[in-house]
This record gives sequence, C-alpha cells and structure tokens, in this order.
Amino acid sequence: MTKKQKGNMLIAQSGGPSMVINQSLVGAVIEAKKHKEIDSIYGALHGIKGIIEEDFIDLGKESLANLESVAASPSSALGTVRQKPTVKDCQKIFEVLRKYNIHYFFYIGGNDSAETAHIINVEADAVGYELRCFHIPKTIDNDLLENDHTPGFGSAARFVADALRGINLDNRALPGVHISVVMGRHAGFLTAASALARSHEDDGPHLIYLPERVFKMGQFVKDVQKVYKKLGRCLITVSEGISDQNGQAIAAKFSKEVDSHGNVQLSGTGSLGDLLANEIKAKTKIKRVRADTFGYLQRSFPGMASPTDSKEARKVGQVAVNTAVKKNIDGSIAIRRKPGKKYQVSFDCVPLRKVARDTKEMPARFINKAGNDVTQAFIDYAKPIVGKLPIVGRLKAKKVRKIK
Amino acid sequence: MTKKQKGNMLIAQSGGPSMVINQSLVGAVIEAKKHKEIDSIYGALHGIKGIIEEDFIDLGKESLANLESVAASPSSALGTVRQKPTVKDCQKIFEVLRKYNIHYFFYIGGNDSAETAHIINVEADAVGYELRCFHIPKTIDNDLLENDHTPGFGSAARFVADALRGINLDNRALPGVHISVVMGRHAGFLTAASALARSHEDDGPHLIYLPERVFKMGQFVKDVQKVYKKLGRCLITVSEGISDQNGQAIAAKFSKEVDSHGNVQLSGTGSLGDLLANEIKAKTKIKRVRADTFGYLQRSFPGMASPTDSKEARKVGQVAVNTAVKKNIDGSIAIRRKPGKKYQVSFDCVPLRKVARDTKEMPARFINKAGNDVTQAFIDYAKPIVGKLPIVGRLKAKKVRKIK
Repeated sequence: MTKKQKGNMLIAQSGGPSMVINQSLVGAVIEAKKHKEIDSIYGALHGIKGIIEEDFIDLGKESLANLESVAASPSSALGTVRQKPTVKDCQKIFEVLRKYNIHYFFYIGGNDSAETAHIINVEADAVGYELRCFHIPKTIDNDLLENDHTPGFGSAARFVADALRGINLDNRALPGVHISVVMGRHAGFLTAASALARSHEDDGPHLIYLPERVFKMGQFVKDVQKVYKKLGRCLITVSEGISDQNGQAIAAKFSKEVDSHGNVQLSGTGSLGDLLANEIKAKTKIKRVRADTFGYLQRSFPGMASPTDSKEARKVGQVAVNTAVKKNIDGSIAIRRKPGKKYQVSFDCVPLRKVARDTKEMPARFINKAGNDVTQAFIDYAKPIVGKLPIVGRLKAKKVRKIK
Repeated sequence: MTKKQKGNMLIAQSGGPSMVINQSLVGAVIEAKKHKEIDSIYGALHGIKGIIEEDFIDLGKESLANLESVAASPSSALGTVRQKPTVKDCQKIFEVLRKYNIHYFFYIGGNDSAETAHIINVEADAVGYELRCFHIPKTIDNDLLENDHTPGFGSAARFVADALRGINLDNRALPGVHISVVMGRHAGFLTAASALARSHEDDGPHLIYLPERVFKMGQFVKDVQKVYKKLGRCLITVSEGISDQNGQAIAAKFSKEVDSHGNVQLSGTGSLGDLLANEIKAKTKIKRVRADTFGYLQRSFPGMASPTDSKEARKVGQVAVNTAVKKNIDGSIAIRRKPGKKYQVSFDCVPLRKVARDTKEMPARFINKAGNDVTQAFIDYAKPIVGKLPIVGRLKAKKVRKIK
C-alpha cells in the first residue's frame, strides 16, 4: 500500500465475543469520523459472512450516546462469525469492497481473524486493489503473538477472579472439593487469573491446571487429597483445554463438534467438570465434590468489564483507524507493556502476518514447578490488567473458650 | 415463653449460602449490641454442628467496620451446614445452651432451618428452658411460606437476569440455541427471574421451564424449533428441578447423592444442561446448541447483590433480635408486601411452625398457559426486589441499501 486513499470504511467483528470488543468498534468509529479520508463508515454484520452477503449497516448514522451505550455492553454488537474465508470467498469479498468503494477495512478478533485480514490483504495486493487492512486485537484467551496482553482478557479474567472469590467464600461455608472449569483451549491465562481471587493464605483456588502442562489424572487426585487433608476443602480451577500426554484435550473425548477452523467444541458443556468431579468421588473418600463450568458468562457478563481493559480496547480501535489513515500502512495494533514498576502500555503497529500465524501460551516463568499453580510473576503481570475486585470480608473474632 | 430473659445470645447460619445472608447476621449483631438484656453475642460455626461441638466465636468483639465488610460479602461468614438435628442432637444442644447461659437463639436459613429452630424451641419448652428462639429467613429459592419473598432471592435473581442479558447479546452475535440451567428444586422463582433480562421484543430468554409444570421432552423440542424458525436463535432457561409426569426430576436421573434432609444433589453438575442440549441436537437440524449451568455463582458472586435485597436482609436480622427482646416472643420474621403501586414491605413476626413445614411454589398467575414462560404479573412482582440491571445497548443504524 503506497497511495493515500480516500473512500469508505468497513469494520466487522469476528470470533468469540468479549466484554470489551464493542469498545474497539466504537473507538474505531469515533476516530473514523474525524478523518476526511473516510466517507461512509459501514459495519458488516456477522464478520466476513456479512461482507460476502453485502449485509451492512451505516455506523456513521449512530448517535454518540448510542455508540457509548453499545461500547459499555458485552458481546459483538455487529454480530460475529467463526468462518475462515476460502479463496472463492476472498474473490467475492473484493468484488464487494470495490462495489462499495471501500478502501479501509478493519477486522476485530483473535489470531484466526488476523489470518482472515491477512488473507484479504494479500489478495488485495495480488489484484492491485488499494486497501488499508487492519486487524484489531481481541481475545479473552490472551494468546495473540506480539501482544503483552489482549483486549478482552482483562475483563474475562476479572469475572473469573471475582467468581472464584465468591466460590471460595461459599466453599469455606460449606466445605468440600469444588472444580471451576474456565475457557482456554491452548493458553491458560484466563484460568491462571483465578489466582487473583486469593487474599488470605487459605483462600482458593488451591490448585490450578493449565493446558500448557500435561494433565495427569493420578497426580491430580493426589494433589487434591493433599490440599483436602490440610484444609478440609479444596478449590480447583482447570482450563477447558487441559490435555493428556498425547496432547488430546480431556474434554474433547466427549465432543464431536468441529468448527471451520478445525477447533473441537470445548465450551457450552459441563462434561469436563463432571468427569473430574466423578474421578475425585471414585478415588477418594471425599463426599462433597462439585463442579461449575463458567461457560459464556465469563465473556459476556454485563457490568464486569475491567476499566483498564475497556480503556485499552477503545484505544486499539482508535489507533488502528488513525494509523491506517495517517501512516497509510496495513497491520495489527499490538499492546506492549513499558518496562518499569508503573503499569504503562504503548500501542504499536505490527505486520498482519506476525499476529496471524501462531498463538502464544503462558511462559514457563508464570507456571510453578509442579504444574499445578501460577507464580508471583504471573500475579504481577495480570493484576493491573484485571483491576480491582469487589472487597470480600471474613469474621475475625477469636474462638470462645469452651466451658469445661 | 413468658418471662423476659437476660442472658447470652447465639446466632448461626444454615442451608445454602446467599449473597445477603451476612447482612442478616450483621443486622442481628448490631441490634443485639443495643439491648441490655443481651450479654455476650456468640456465633456458632457451621450451624447446629457448631452448637453441638461448642464451636463459638465472640461476635461482640467484631469491629463495626469489619462487620460491614462481612455484611457486603456473599456466603455465610459463620459457615453453614446441611444437617437436621436428631432428638439426641437437640438434647445435646440444650446442654450447651444452658452451659453457656444462652437465652436468645437466632437461626438464619430456609424452611429446613426454620424446622430446626422449631424443633429446638419445642424441646426447650418441653424441658422448661427459657429460650427466645427465632428463625431469620433466607433462601434464594424464594419458597418460604408466609413471605411475599425471601432475602437472598433478589440478589440471586439479579445475577440470573444479568447473566441472561449477557448471554442474549452473546447469542445475538453468534446465533444458536442456548440453555441456561438455574437453581431451584421445587420453586421456579429464580429461573423465572431470567425474564427480567428482556428489554427488546426479540430478547431472550424465549422459553422458560419451571418445576411447577410437568416437563415434556417432546413439547420442549417443538417449542425450541418454533422459536428458532422465527428468530434464527433460541434462549432457554430451565430450573434444575424440572420434573417428568411422575414427579421425578430430570436431573435426578443422573445423581445418586442425597443429603440428610432427603434432597438429591441437583447443583454442581452440568448433566441436565448437556442432556437437554443433546436432545435438541438429536431431534432437530440445529447445529449450534450450548448449555451453561450457573451453579454456585448465582448465590455467591461478589458485587451482584440487589440493593433492596441487601436492605431487607439486614432488616430481618435486626427485627428478629428487636422482637425477641422487646416482645419476648418466639417466631420467624416474614416479609409482607403492602398493597398499592409503590413497592413497600412490612416485617412481621409469625409462628415458627408456619414457616417450618412446607414450602411454596410459583402461583399459577405467574406462569403462562403453555407452561413455557412467565406472565407480566411475575415481572411486576419481581422487578422491585431484583432492582436495576446494568444497561446494555444495541446498534440502531439502518441497513445500507445494497448496490445492484
């Protein structure tokens, strides 16, 4: 891309919704209104499906008040899709882009969405169509390359940590074993965030299992028994993606559903939690064993967005549009953390292909040696992104001396 | 009970935790400090288990600031128990009460807890032990007799309604069938509260199944297909206690665990949601079918308490202590709604036995004729108790006219 373009803009959302993906949408739309290079601001409904079907709404007509209301709401206001475009799809997409005089394209999503944006961009180059093509990062999994962390993660993590605070109090009151199943196919960041729930030494989660380490059922049962013996209760968080030594997801053993990206369905079912609970019941003498699967609540619960996450999600949308227009380049906006004690980030433009290919996992320094907890380094990393949680109290009064 | 007593007070919590049961505890403790008739304020840990084992803490030593912090936190700060006392237990309890000079006893919980309080009170009368014995109401199921509604319900209902608002947006973005499984063994109030999530005509939940009506699998599938055909998506909420024509809970078919009150375990497992999702997948051509079971989050999520519910929960604790001391009677505090358009309640003292025996279900006027939704009468009933939910927005802009 070399020539500074004037034309219409198209923006779409893709992949799993998050609590702040609409912040990115609204950040981009408000920024676009400032630039004379951009005429109409179209939103495609349900990602590339809406582009192919020419299913657009005119976002330039939205009032600022309504945009702000949408920005504060979870889920993808334009609708979303889990669809990887074929070569034929891409040809159709260019027809549509040309027809609607679109020269600015923004696709909000995870690495699959970055790949989609990358494919469209390569195709655009191949046929010589002038297109500023940007990927705007979003994923609660926090697994995008080039990024310190990803918009959507902080808010989902806040839900998970707050949920664990509540479950910890519930489990203190009515002791037993409790298993929380958290989203995360290959990256354990979101499950790891449950550690932020702890404020007293005996607070749960007491064990955390991540997809980055091989899950061994026998060791799991031993770990639980050890904690239970000490505390009389045990809180566990596991990623939905925990896998055996062959790399097969434990949850996948129950699921036959596969999407067009080749991903097996792991969410939207309670089977992994039930399997683990039944294993504990069968192998130990512990009677009260419960499992909760957080499911779609963790990415869509209204009112739980992290303020930092919301601000950063807004910013990546804004910076993407500004960079596309002012610098006349393509790319993806990456959040980088500045060195130093104070939490500060920068928003840098990186090549699409660098974000599109792979995903990242939790680095080894964030996982304890036994593979059943996180380290302080992870806590320090996640805390500023997740933000403050509601305070929970506990009674402090001493035991009354027993009368003999 | 006739003679006005002076002595120590004992308070305990029982049954399932709620988001506001600590408000009742703190309301009672703060009130107790005002009365010269009450000397020490003991809290028994884990309900009657803590009484039998003389496991008390001195609540009079808690600072006001810490009490307020506990009041704002979910779950039962004293710990709780699911245990019905035997005659032998009751004998032991009186020994303990005598030994500790306890003449004021408050037990916070549901109808099982009211029954426990009633048994203790009857036993006290039988042996001529002077005891002011009060039950303080709490149950997220909202099924206590004599009460318009029960502390704990409004906050759990707020969680459920807010969750559905988020899931509705998630499902609009990524359409399919979604099933939410909500707590409620015999009473559907909490599941019904999901209806408060609706603000637009096409908002979910589109179908609501309650334990008060026979659940017919065939009709369920038909209902879902009808909604799906119209909207291209369908959100369903079901109570964990939905039962077949023989009165057997659908979820109980998977569970062998029974507590000392004879209740089969329904919560802490995702099997009901998975069963219903699999039925839809098997009997229709709908591909994307997901189920979430809200589990313990709905009674223990920090920061979600309804302001009205919190206030009323505080008040029942306070009124129980005040009534016990000033009126020198036994009983349970019941919340009654005053007639009229404006939401107003009174806190009345009713005999223990009236609350202890049975539970109530949703009245017929709250359930639609087809048995798959609630009525406007229910919405009017529940709204003031649940309070305001976070606002969620949706884009309003019109479709862009397609270029020919």
